[in-house]
Amino acid sequence: MRTLTVSLDDRSYPIHIGPGLLEQPALLLERLPQKRAVIVTNDVVAPLYLDAFERGLAAAGVQSLRIVLPDGEDHKNWATLNTILDAMLENRCERRTTIIALGGGVVGDIAGFAAAVYQRGVPFIQVPTTLLAQVDSAVGGKTAINHPLGKNMIGAFYQPRVVIADTDTLATLPPREFSAGLAEVIKYGFIRDPEFLDWLESHMDVLLAREAEALTHAIERSCWNKAEVVASDERETADVRALLNFGHTFGHAIEAGTGYGTWLHGEAVAMGMVLAARLSWQLGYLRAADVDRVTTLLKQAHVPVVAPDLGSDRYIEFMGHDKKVQGGQLKFILLRGLGDAFVGEAPNAALTELLSGPAVHA
Amino acid sequence: MRTLTVSLDDRSYPIHIGPGLLEQPALLLERLPQKRAVIVTNDVVAPLYLDAFERGLAAAGVQSLRIVLPDGEDHKNWATLNTILDAMLENRCERRTTIIALGGGVVGDIAGFAAAVYQRGVPFIQVPTTLLAQVDSAVGGKTAINHPLGKNMIGAFYQPRVVIADTDTLATLPPREFSAGLAEVIKYGFIRDPEFLDWLESHMDVLLAREAEALTHAIERSCWNKAEVVASDERETADVRALLNFGHTFGHAIEAGTGYGTWLHGEAVAMGMVLAARLSWQLGYLRAADVDRVTTLLKQAHVPVVAPDLGSDRYIEFMGHDKKVQGGQLKFILLRGLGDAFVGEAPNAALTELLSGPAVHA
Repeated sequence: MRTLTVSLDDRSYPIHIGPGLLEQPALLLERLPQKRAVIVTNDVVAPLYLDAFERGLAAAGVQSLRIVLPDGEDHKNWATLNTILDAMLENRCERRTTIIALGGGVVGDIAGFAAAVYQRGVPFIQVPTTLLAQVDSAVGGKTAINHPLGKNMIGAFYQPRVVIADTDTLATLPPREFSAGLAEVIKYGFIRDPEFLDWLESHMDVLLAREAEALTHAIERSCWNKAEVVASDERETADVRALLNFGHTFGHAIEAGTGYGTWLHGEAVAMGMVLAARLSWQLGYLRAADVDRVTTLLKQAHVPVVAPDLGSDRYIEFMGHDKKVQGGQLKFILLRGLGDAFVGEAPNAALTELLSGPAVHA
Repeated sequence: MRTLTVSLDDRSYPIHIGPGLLEQPALLLERLPQKRAVIVTNDVVAPLYLDAFERGLAAAGVQSLRIVLPDGEDHKNWATLNTILDAMLENRCERRTTIIALGGGVVGDIAGFAAAVYQRGVPFIQVPTTLLAQVDSAVGGKTAINHPLGKNMIGAFYQPRVVIADTDTLATLPPREFSAGLAEVIKYGFIRDPEFLDWLESHMDVLLAREAEALTHAIERSCWNKAEVVASDERETADVRALLNFGHTFGHAIEAGTGYGTWLHGEAVAMGMVLAARLSWQLGYLRAADVDRVTTLLKQAHVPVVAPDLGSDRYIEFMGHDKKVQGGQLKFILLRGLGDAFVGEAPNAALTELLSGPAVHA
């Protein structure tokens, strides 16, 4: 097991990474203020891991309530959030009852938001079971639900007390979801870690084969990058944390424009990174050879690199709801080079050209 | 104008108290990161103050969106919260757009919760226009909505950037609401400020006549007490902030049991304080003469001192949803003496006796 720390003063917490961690309830126990927990999971993860996980907790004397949500991004909404809050109130969960998210990004985001608002905040633990959640969404305290007018528009910054990433759970992940998770791994290389980028280019085959050693390294290095960024800009008030949104402005528009759940989040982000790299090239920041390197690596990871043709107007309309908009002005994460991202702007003409050009139609 | 500070490190903020403050937009301006604001108010306050308030902001170059909610505690729910969030998204409000709550406790609680969750948090300003909001709910960062199973069950700790209490707005307050606000003023005397209690007993007539000098003193002293408590225990993790809940466990049961809005919050709290004082006496902590002093002062303030007969079982049932419950055990704020509160427990037999005794039936 490898352990990293997210440094946030009195809210600092560990991330444990390794095989067999679901069977080690001791990692959780030390973080529970009360031997009572609510396990939020979904109907795909539950049959695989819930019984064993609950048994481990029960053996340690923890009483737990299970809440099994329907799977998928299109359930990350008010109605589902309310099923969690209603069940907790009906079962008289208290202020010191801990919510444990067992699942992927959707489960973690919605369970974390429930923890942030139930009785003004209860303890929260992340047990991510997808690659995307282990390397990104479970770390850093962003919680949210979607709104018809935009993804993650309603939420809170709310840090977990511990993150437990059991790499064994990745064995059951469908290839499409595994690849979507790889897109977020690769993102760290593009925005701030050129050495990791080199490593990824030469290890994509063993990663896709899910070899334990390569997987553990990729998750650890991703979490290390994320923890560094979060520690220096927890609430995205500087332009530091915003860099983690590389590919996300376009990605969110793709998810909203095609209907949440059609594209996996990681797939939309991958596509968004291709678009952001091309935009960086159009604006004169990035070399064409580097755009090719972006596209090639993502292709190797088996994620889409051709965007859906929503029409440039609809893209721009959806992007107008982005949380990075300031004074009506869209902000983009752009690249000056591979491993060197920054927050910038783009004229509408450049966006129209990009979004009706070969990246979309090819 | 008097100014106090709530000391919370980098989230510290001023409370301004005095006449004519609604006409001083400069107090707000210095706290706006962007010249854009959303004013959340209700259909009782809007006709009185909204136009003038908006004009002041407009003259200072601030573009504002108005959201007028229906008045009343029974609208402090998901549906109303969503009307705020929907309007903000439709109008493309950004992360640096400030929400200003112009109104009483309900407006402040729900607008504050909207500010806490819109795009994971936007700046927030409290402009309380009722006595209860000026001395209690607008200060300290508790935001929430109600749930059918309990009051304020869904919410967040989210501090405003400034609180502006214009004492002129109290002139239009109906007598019943004014008295309900006095109950929260008196509370500070009961729990931690015996000197203030003496002052209140000798100034209740001028307070009820709403004399400016007395009013300003009462609001300032209340805010000073609240600010001290909040600074030492912002998130109610110690037993310090919990003391502010004196009367609230019974009070919330009365509000829920009679249907939200039937009793005003301050009225229910007043009644709850009588019950908590009687319970303190039953359990041997408080002298009978002090219980009489509690009842007498509240009677002077024209708030109810005879509780609705919900039946002791229903009282206990409703109180079971209290946020102070720990390990299934109800917690009460009790008095050892006037000005000396503590967190304690009460056997069910004592509660049954109290809640089927003369405090209820008299």
